[in-house]
Amino acid sequence: MPGGDDGCLDPRDGLVALPAPRARVHAWLALQAHAAFDPVAARAALERSGGDPAAALRALGAGPPHAVLDAAALAAACAALVRVGARLLPYGAALYPARLAALADPPPLLAVRGDPRALGGPLIAIVGARLATPYGVGAARTLARQLAGLGFGIVSGLARGIDAAAHRGALDGGGRTIGVLGCGADRVYPREHEALAEAMSAAGAIVSELPPGAAPLKMHFPLRNRLISGLAEAVVVVEAKAHSGSRITAEHAAEQGREVLAVPGPIDAPTSAGPNLLLRDGVAPALDASDVLRALGRSEEAEAWLRRRAGARAGADAEAALAPEARAVLAALRRQPATRDELAARLGWTPAALAAPLLALELDGRVAEDRAGRLRIVPR
Amino acid sequence: MPGGDDGCLDPRDGLVALPAPRARVHAWLALQAHAAFDPVAARAALERSGGDPAAALRALGAGPPHAVLDAAALAAACAALVRVGARLLPYGAALYPARLAALADPPPLLAVRGDPRALGGPLIAIVGARLATPYGVGAARTLARQLAGLGFGIVSGLARGIDAAAHRGALDGGGRTIGVLGCGADRVYPREHEALAEAMSAAGAIVSELPPGAAPLKMHFPLRNRLISGLAEAVVVVEAKAHSGSRITAEHAAEQGREVLAVPGPIDAPTSAGPNLLLRDGVAPALDASDVLRALGRSEEAEAWLRRRAGARAGADAEAALAPEARAVLAALRRQPATRDELAARLGWTPAALAAPLLALELDGRVAEDRAGRLRIVPR
Repeated sequence: MPGGDDGCLDPRDGLVALPAPRARVHAWLALQAHAAFDPVAARAALERSGGDPAAALRALGAGPPHAVLDAAALAAACAALVRVGARLLPYGAALYPARLAALADPPPLLAVRGDPRALGGPLIAIVGARLATPYGVGAARTLARQLAGLGFGIVSGLARGIDAAAHRGALDGGGRTIGVLGCGADRVYPREHEALAEAMSAAGAIVSELPPGAAPLKMHFPLRNRLISGLAEAVVVVEAKAHSGSRITAEHAAEQGREVLAVPGPIDAPTSAGPNLLLRDGVAPALDASDVLRALGRSEEAEAWLRRRAGARAGADAEAALAPEARAVLAALRRQPATRDELAARLGWTPAALAAPLLALELDGRVAEDRAGRLRIVPR
Repeated sequence: MPGGDDGCLDPRDGLVALPAPRARVHAWLALQAHAAFDPVAARAALERSGGDPAAALRALGAGPPHAVLDAAALAAACAALVRVGARLLPYGAALYPARLAALADPPPLLAVRGDPRALGGPLIAIVGARLATPYGVGAARTLARQLAGLGFGIVSGLARGIDAAAHRGALDGGGRTIGVLGCGADRVYPREHEALAEAMSAAGAIVSELPPGAAPLKMHFPLRNRLISGLAEAVVVVEAKAHSGSRITAEHAAEQGREVLAVPGPIDAPTSAGPNLLLRDGVAPALDASDVLRALGRSEEAEAWLRRRAGARAGADAEAALAPEARAVLAALRRQPATRDELAARLGWTPAALAAPLLALELDGRVAEDRAGRLRIVPR
């Protein structure tokens, strides 16, 4: 990664308060190593210390930074972060996401691959089981794509199953997506998601509060899950067993003040027991993106989205009902208006073959000739 | 059918107020023929006329009974009802179901095959699409069986799909079930449900407010649906399209003050769009029978039912984990306690073959020898 006086920070990004001498980076990484698993204490110490990580370390009784992270460990941590292009975003920085800062237990330090600004945008979390069914994978991907189309970024945990489907759906929809890791930012777990993680850092961010090199231990995941819901405005649970991490995430999300939604599924499917039980507890169902808008109090936008979708479907249905020749003419004109001769040439048809489908489209009001004699699609 | 002075009423059942002379039956059938499609007017006329159907007919401007139903039509109606063993239950009779009498539009006259007392018990309606999926059919049947086990009768419309599955589930569970017809009580629609209808009249009732001979016309079904929900304490919608009769039934049921529940299903299944949209509108999800109890304000019974089910499953799981020989021994002893020799003979095993599985069951506390030397299953 570019610039910086220490190999693992780029002061031009404002990711840490300037000046960012090597000592300050050392202090942040030492605080992370010491207190990443006790973020409440770290936050309190930072606030008592005016945001100075070295002072916070002393307040926590950990001594100076080099007592926590010696020179070799510091060099290794920085090298690991540099290798994956990660940057550091400490608590208190201007770009530190406001929704995380408002939690009782914000991470003292985030390592971010990709664009740290993505963490502060409008985000929806989509979570669920690793052992998902094709139904759950499809539902997660569709919801994520719909939400991306509405300008939401999608947060999830980069796990197999629902998480990966949610990230992919956001990418399908041309949106941003954020993966929160249960391991150090220099690792990707599971390994098979390395290409997905690359695509995500290019279209959003991969983020971790854990020290570089941290393994994906089971104990990390509850901590990780509070960040997934903490970053988002709402959390959608797609597929999960009755007693599962996703249901716990939903409870924590509600405690964080996040809207929680659940995707209904068959009452005889163990993978839908989690969301269905959330529905029993009064959580709103997520049938499509409009439910998320509604949960956020944006009911008019929800209704407008449903109307747009119904309109698009009706249009697609009407076009699908046309003869194949007429559909071919529309497709050719969609690329560019054309005279009759140009159109026949574009299609590779004789002018005689063009006549009937074109007449049908003109009578139907779908195609009209402009003053220059070019055929154009009439906007509907 | 037995008794009666007119061939279609049995005064001993108290189904009409005594005395029930032929003239009174004539008046009820004439009122039904005149006013079955305007039950609000029929009720008002009956109440103004002190419950006398002939006076109600006059109040409705229909003239005397023979002006509405001539002698030949009366004889035909009675013969049709007698042929299927139907009895008449007029508005105001002691056995007329209280929940129907409390509606704004109770039917003036019901024809009942089976036990009219079944109409007054605790009833749950289960409704849904004719074109149901295997998922919906299974869910309806399971819910009906669970509810029958809790002492509820199941009301539905005897249609293909969800209705038939609900009736069958109630029969599976040894419960009562009630079919409300959209045609005269002397007919069964669809014809393929004639055997089901027979079984239902033996374990509940088939009921219609329509005149004998009435065909299953589309216009009858909204009327019929108000009786399905009107008879029940709660209505469960299983599978239905987004714009469907079942959703309208749910709306009417809510207007009647009935609890409404919906069975969640996949968000990409058109057959689950109806119930899922009801969930969006705030209707409670029906995952199992406990949700119905909860909707009726019987939360403690709901929790007790869930605990019993969890206990039964744990027991079944533990038994399934036993060796096949041990399971065979348990099955043999479940029929009747036995000495070791009797048990070996019952299983067709040598005493030596019996020794190991029996010892395992004794050590596990599942089987014990009583004072008479007979092996018995230990109640758990």
